[in-house]
Amino acid sequence: MRPLLFITNDDGISSKGIKSLIEIAKEFGDILVVAPDKPQSGMGHAITVNQILRLEKSLIFEGVDAYTCSGTPVDCVKLGIYEIMKRKPDLILSGINHGANYSTNVLYSGTMSAAVEGAMENIPSIGFSLDDFHSDADFSEAQSWSKKLIREALNGNFPKHVCFNVNFPSFNGQPYKGFQVCSQAHAFWEDRFDKRLDQFGKPYYWLTGEFIAGNEIKGTDIEALNKGYATIVPTQFDMTAYNALDELKKWNL
Amino acid sequence: MRPLLFITNDDGISSKGIKSLIEIAKEFGDILVVAPDKPQSGMGHAITVNQILRLEKSLIFEGVDAYTCSGTPVDCVKLGIYEIMKRKPDLILSGINHGANYSTNVLYSGTMSAAVEGAMENIPSIGFSLDDFHSDADFSEAQSWSKKLIREALNGNFPKHVCFNVNFPSFNGQPYKGFQVCSQAHAFWEDRFDKRLDQFGKPYYWLTGEFIAGNEIKGTDIEALNKGYATIVPTQFDMTAYNALDELKKWNL
Repeated sequence: MRPLLFITNDDGISSKGIKSLIEIAKEFGDILVVAPDKPQSGMGHAITVNQILRLEKSLIFEGVDAYTCSGTPVDCVKLGIYEIMKRKPDLILSGINHGANYSTNVLYSGTMSAAVEGAMENIPSIGFSLDDFHSDADFSEAQSWSKKLIREALNGNFPKHVCFNVNFPSFNGQPYKGFQVCSQAHAFWEDRFDKRLDQFGKPYYWLTGEFIAGNEIKGTDIEALNKGYATIVPTQFDMTAYNALDELKKWNL
Repeated sequence: MRPLLFITNDDGISSKGIKSLIEIAKEFGDILVVAPDKPQSGMGHAITVNQILRLEKSLIFEGVDAYTCSGTPVDCVKLGIYEIMKRKPDLILSGINHGANYSTNVLYSGTMSAAVEGAMENIPSIGFSLDDFHSDADFSEAQSWSKKLIREALNGNFPKHVCFNVNFPSFNGQPYKGFQVCSQAHAFWEDRFDKRLDQFGKPYYWLTGEFIAGNEIKGTDIEALNKGYATIVPTQFDMTAYNALDELKKWNL
């Protein structure tokens, strides 16, 4: 039986990134696509609990079984597994995201949260992101390297309850130097809000800011990306700070 | 100078849970509240990037500096720190949530994501949840234990870049047995979708399902909650699966 590959993203079904991913995934097996019907960037691990969900057959990709979903990327994974397939796929692929998701961006990223949801279901899952926000970004080099990784991921040695956070440098004609397996960089957004006035003189805000990498990036995805590598961070959903357990047990509670 | 305590939640500003938290937090210092203007349960670590944000002064709590925000709990934290306070508070308190957030629910929970955002800002942060979904849930016992924990948290020994996921058993008149410091249980939702037809005969879906704890719960929040303890899971935002790094480096990439 051919493998079943489930594909989703957070930029929505009409983005170039998901089309690029479907093109290469087709070679490896049967495809099911369930993608958001609109952009869902920054939705993190959100699920839709107070609203209804819609699911519509989509004919956007010729010869590909595809649906749009009114919810988040994690909703797409849940609907795909529990409502459409009624079984677990062999591999979940999310992306390719327009924009990088290295370091702590893994927490904000809908693309990566879909992969983390896959890890919770113990399905080999990979989130792919390209460090280029443009809607017409060049995914060709990312496609080649993604193919390589998908081939290996189907070999049966995927770590249990783990997903991969894969980031590709923006493509400027220079081939990537290879894959590097990294840890998640300890780096953060320094947020700013752009405060504006609407037509009634009432304030509103746009979230903006700068991502600050700092100096402690050795062995991390940020360091490797800066050097021109594609990066893989194995990513887990156990958020327990094991290092803090013993100290905390000494508190006077 | 009195400590500055920042308070948010995901059930929205008019919930009983946040009122219960404000009541006890007042004793420890000055308070700033920025809470969602509507329920934001299940929003995980979502941020608002494709929409504007509104922030309105609220007079709902007498003598308390409070705002409503049109965004997610994480938006509330970011707006509070970067737009309103222009400085970091001494403690971030999120909740008290109507409904428990033990185990992997930490990923879906807006209440906990606000605390995780605080940890990224290296601010001592605690998310509180009560295992009772009712809007008139009894928070009195949870309040007593929360006070105890807040007092300790202000002592200056809070672990760096870590937040606490605190869960209280539903209160049935029986005092909690104490606090237990635990790891996050490895347990998952088995999702189901309730498929219905709208007035035009078109299908829509409600996410539902069952949380399955399994047998491997020793030392976890689920075990301790079941025994009547209030639980504390120290929680981090580094999601790197360090155990998988070496194995993955052997892959033929």
